[in-house]
Amino acid sequence: MPVQDIGRIDGLTYPTGVAYMAGKFMPISEARISVLDWGLLHSDVTYDTVHVWKGKFFRLDLHIARFRRSLAKLRLNVPFSDEALRDILVECVKRSGLRDAYVEMLCTRGISPTFSRDPREAINQFVAFAVPFGSVANARQLKEGLHLHLIDDVRRIPAESVDPQIKNYHWLDLVTALFKGYDAGAENVIIKCTDGSLAEGPGFNVFIVCDGALHTPDHGVLHGVTRQTVFDLADAAGLRAHSGTISESQLRNADEVFITSTAGGIMPVTRLNGTMIGDGAPGPVTRALFEAYWARHDDPAWSLTVDYGDQHA
Amino acid sequence: MPVQDIGRIDGLTYPTGVAYMAGKFMPISEARISVLDWGLLHSDVTYDTVHVWKGKFFRLDLHIARFRRSLAKLRLNVPFSDEALRDILVECVKRSGLRDAYVEMLCTRGISPTFSRDPREAINQFVAFAVPFGSVANARQLKEGLHLHLIDDVRRIPAESVDPQIKNYHWLDLVTALFKGYDAGAENVIIKCTDGSLAEGPGFNVFIVCDGALHTPDHGVLHGVTRQTVFDLADAAGLRAHSGTISESQLRNADEVFITSTAGGIMPVTRLNGTMIGDGAPGPVTRALFEAYWARHDDPAWSLTVDYGDQHA
Repeated sequence: MPVQDIGRIDGLTYPTGVAYMAGKFMPISEARISVLDWGLLHSDVTYDTVHVWKGKFFRLDLHIARFRRSLAKLRLNVPFSDEALRDILVECVKRSGLRDAYVEMLCTRGISPTFSRDPREAINQFVAFAVPFGSVANARQLKEGLHLHLIDDVRRIPAESVDPQIKNYHWLDLVTALFKGYDAGAENVIIKCTDGSLAEGPGFNVFIVCDGALHTPDHGVLHGVTRQTVFDLADAAGLRAHSGTISESQLRNADEVFITSTAGGIMPVTRLNGTMIGDGAPGPVTRALFEAYWARHDDPAWSLTVDYGDQHA
Repeated sequence: MPVQDIGRIDGLTYPTGVAYMAGKFMPISEARISVLDWGLLHSDVTYDTVHVWKGKFFRLDLHIARFRRSLAKLRLNVPFSDEALRDILVECVKRSGLRDAYVEMLCTRGISPTFSRDPREAINQFVAFAVPFGSVANARQLKEGLHLHLIDDVRRIPAESVDPQIKNYHWLDLVTALFKGYDAGAENVIIKCTDGSLAEGPGFNVFIVCDGALHTPDHGVLHGVTRQTVFDLADAAGLRAHSGTISESQLRNADEVFITSTAGGIMPVTRLNGTMIGDGAPGPVTRALFEAYWARHDDPAWSLTVDYGDQHA
């Protein structure tokens, strides 16, 4: 499929990529949802993301399983089996030709013919797309570490309002914190839970390393697949890893800090609010986990190879 | 403009209506935003809604002023003056031919050509549309009163996470509560703030009447234009009206309860969790405010008449 990058309708420039919606594959610039879709108008939508690295999906089964759990909690219906869903995602990547891709599946509440406010009357809409792999950290940041700010005056939406295990687009807390961070010179931000403990950043979980053991928040955050992968890698390496409440002082006094996301993997943090963490360079535990993480992308148990056929060989 | 109601792309049925986006007016079924727009993917968007009744906008200036405040708080830019914005909304209604319309203006963060996660790199997108007037309450409910449930185990997203004065689409708390309410036989729901006091419902504020005085929550809720209109009408009628913390027991023991929304105006509530409020019929204060509210739609100071021209006369 030829991939266009200029929107026919709006004249805007889009990344290359391929989407699937309404039963068809299309260039990403043509994948558009109605402005009446409650996925936009009420953010009544859930999603999941997975990445493809060197032509291989990483832990796709875990992402599809989590997507199913999110859908069930929101009473949304995707009319595909797990296998059909997998095939659609693979086809998006194959048609895009992208060897390194960021792949997203989402399901909106949809529209109702009468614009009824009753979500039971809306027709759920499934969309999937593959675009070039993106990372929270750029190449320099991956090597030298990110400079983050802990933002105090915006708190993550609490679990009593929105279940964080439903992967959701309620990001205005994170976006507001990000602007505050930018104003203060940060490259990215971490925010706290309403109880003052550490939460997460825009699209990533946070880990600290203290005396060789890993710690990450347990409540008020999405239990990310990359977060789970860190637990799996730590287990394989004989490292202790715990989830629990983490205070601001534990973060500030950590030996190492790193963040995890499907958009980037395991990424070192070397400055917090302008102050060096440890000696200001990515630490040995972070570096070892980083290497193990990318090495596991070749493990058949954790990966699925895309067959691109001839046209993109 | 001919108004289609079947989407050319998705084959779905849409309400009649007209939208404006990317510099053009179009049938509502063709108004679609990119799936890469952060307005969808991060709910990084704000909006406002206004209604048209019998060919007249009601308090449009207040809605545009609030939209400007929301935009400024989110650092979103709409490249139109207030007058140009007003003219676009009027034109949507005129082209739709709708005498009774629900009109929405929104601005998304937009897309960035590289799918960058930095919101400063996205190109903000403005959309407006007019669809048939819709109400939280149907005709029977307007006459006899709504049967609501107060939901205890989902709390409104707190102000420390998302400023409720930024009109936003973070509704998963409300949608989750709505499903719980439906399961329990409710027609609609009210939820609480994290401190246990009364908050609001999906798209509406709540008022109680006790000993002839009006009370409505002050914090953790959007300060709705219809809510403000109730204060204005109460002032004109010599009624006392206060905003402050309202407890569950104050709600349960109120003489009258009503809700307010641009989508429906002033709407009586006559049952709460299955128990009658007062004598189970809309009360005299609610009825008087209802009459005054609709009467004021003819007041030139509070309304703007749409000139439909000849084709829809």
